[in-house]
Amino acid sequence: MADIGSTTGSDIVAKLEEQVHSGSESAVSTRANSSSRDSTVSSADSHSEAQPTTTNGKRKAEMDFDILAPPYSLSANRTPHQTADLEEVPHGISRQARDLASYSFPVHRLAEVLQDNTMQPLVIVACGSFSPITFLHLRMFEMAIDTIRELNKFEVVGGYYSPVSDNYRKAGLAPANHRVRMCELACERTSSWLMVDAWESLQPTYQRTAVVLDHFNYEINVKRGGIKTKTGERRPAKIMLLAGGDLIESMGDPNVWDDEDLHHILGRYGCLIVERTGSDVRSFLLSHDIMYEHRHNVIVIKQLIYNDISSTKVRLFIRRGMSVQYLLPNSVIRYIEEHGLYVGMSEPVSNVLKF
Amino acid sequence: MADIGSTTGSDIVAKLEEQVHSGSESAVSTRANSSSRDSTVSSADSHSEAQPTTTNGKRKAEMDFDILAPPYSLSANRTPHQTADLEEVPHGISRQARDLASYSFPVHRLAEVLQDNTMQPLVIVACGSFSPITFLHLRMFEMAIDTIRELNKFEVVGGYYSPVSDNYRKAGLAPANHRVRMCELACERTSSWLMVDAWESLQPTYQRTAVVLDHFNYEINVKRGGIKTKTGERRPAKIMLLAGGDLIESMGDPNVWDDEDLHHILGRYGCLIVERTGSDVRSFLLSHDIMYEHRHNVIVIKQLIYNDISSTKVRLFIRRGMSVQYLLPNSVIRYIEEHGLYVGMSEPVSNVLKF
Repeated sequence: MADIGSTTGSDIVAKLEEQVHSGSESAVSTRANSSSRDSTVSSADSHSEAQPTTTNGKRKAEMDFDILAPPYSLSANRTPHQTADLEEVPHGISRQARDLASYSFPVHRLAEVLQDNTMQPLVIVACGSFSPITFLHLRMFEMAIDTIRELNKFEVVGGYYSPVSDNYRKAGLAPANHRVRMCELACERTSSWLMVDAWESLQPTYQRTAVVLDHFNYEINVKRGGIKTKTGERRPAKIMLLAGGDLIESMGDPNVWDDEDLHHILGRYGCLIVERTGSDVRSFLLSHDIMYEHRHNVIVIKQLIYNDISSTKVRLFIRRGMSVQYLLPNSVIRYIEEHGLYVGMSEPVSNVLKF
Repeated sequence: MADIGSTTGSDIVAKLEEQVHSGSESAVSTRANSSSRDSTVSSADSHSEAQPTTTNGKRKAEMDFDILAPPYSLSANRTPHQTADLEEVPHGISRQARDLASYSFPVHRLAEVLQDNTMQPLVIVACGSFSPITFLHLRMFEMAIDTIRELNKFEVVGGYYSPVSDNYRKAGLAPANHRVRMCELACERTSSWLMVDAWESLQPTYQRTAVVLDHFNYEINVKRGGIKTKTGERRPAKIMLLAGGDLIESMGDPNVWDDEDLHHILGRYGCLIVERTGSDVRSFLLSHDIMYEHRHNVIVIKQLIYNDISSTKVRLFIRRGMSVQYLLPNSVIRYIEEHGLYVGMSEPVSNVLKF
């Protein structure tokens, strides 16, 4: 999740065509093999493709009481498709494009109108590998919402995952399109407000976090002119980076983050830091000159329920054939299985131990 | 989760009629209010009731891309029903009865035939309040499976939650029928092998854990004669109690557990203990005379990913209007919201602090 780049922050210059993009993946749909099941569902979504068409012309997707086939065999009599989880695209969901030419910024869950005129609109952005996304990545946003609500100052109008591109070349990185898709599945299946933006993942070169935040600012505040208030004017949204404690600690290392970038991120935008139980983010903030300077732009989120799920451990478990259920959404686990992700991968032991 | 009773263990004497029970709850189905959605799904399940009937006589359930309406209002334009989660009963699922007269022991996911003739069949039973069930309760079973597989001695043929009855009178206990239903939802929606047994929850008086394990032994090994092997004979299943570290520590307290019960549980059955990171279950085992005597019946499960989700904290968060998403399944959260559970409840601060 740490930023490696060393050149200074700059505004996004790439002009992106705003075009309706079509989903590049067909809905993953497993046909249940039980003869007594004839469940079908007509898809109301206009983005999913390659779905079977019924005689009356309606697109249909086989309903997917889908499997998490356990790694062991529990019984001969058990119907393999029992776990309820849908794989067709829920209504109103836009899937991200797989190339920049057809990319458009996702806004299907971005609030159009601010509910409370006294509040400042806030968009939360999580940068990271998400290889794969876990319940901790999802939970972080929920903790952020609860903390922000207590401040009585911001109204959260959107939340985004921005998976890093393959150019980041970190050990354990699945191809970007898979990581984007896993984030999308997690958002579609489990959340009512989170989205995934593929822009960073589609860039031909590694983009620093400062540049990624500029991209969000450009899309939301420059191109869209911010968020509408109930009285009709538009108000710029504050963009804040949502970060785990490990990312923040890396900010103390001058080899990882450029001072100018830190000023840009913390000064122009801001940071929501999830504090791990036992760690001391506040002392770190006090000791860090740039952080201290921008402390009013830093919100610390206390982790009241400790949880050290890490993508690294999830990958390790998958390599060892161990269960990862209840560490990440079933739909993501199934996607990993279907695409054979992480299985043949090998990672240095040091990678696993430090998490 | 600790056992309070002090009389000695005994076999179950209640003769239970084996009758097909009908689900007593209608499928919870929220109608999406988006006009562009006409998704319907014909239910193939024979247990769900009160579903709308179509003109051609097929029972239908409205598809349930269901809400977790966030506690805050994200946007005006957001369709409220977006999170995918089904509420009709998946195929092959039997819901538990709400009274003893119509009770039958659930076996729909119990393996009928042992896959590996060299193994001993094993049934895992988790006793507790489950008020509400959380991802940690679900994860415990997955950790148990991984640990057991490494031993190369047992084949897991079933996993059960046995929620305690209302007579346990612990603070924070939702009515037993709700706790059973929440466990059922979690199993139906997220697992391919876990089941819920309502027997303990339906008892007119509090039943000690030793008695509950006797009940499982009676149902599986006495009434059903154990598990069939591939060569046709029947082999008794080993019944083991799945327990968190806190339950085990309570076993050191003679005021909580009766010695005779401990001998019965650990000697006749056995225990799978989930060791919390930082705790030292092995030293405890060494120091405890009865545990040490039965140490070959005790399997310690190392918790490789730390997680301190507790039902107590979940209840607290609900009372404070905070998000509990990603701490327990969405279907359970929605059930809690629909039935207004835990909201008006007050619990002593000490209850929360000790977890």
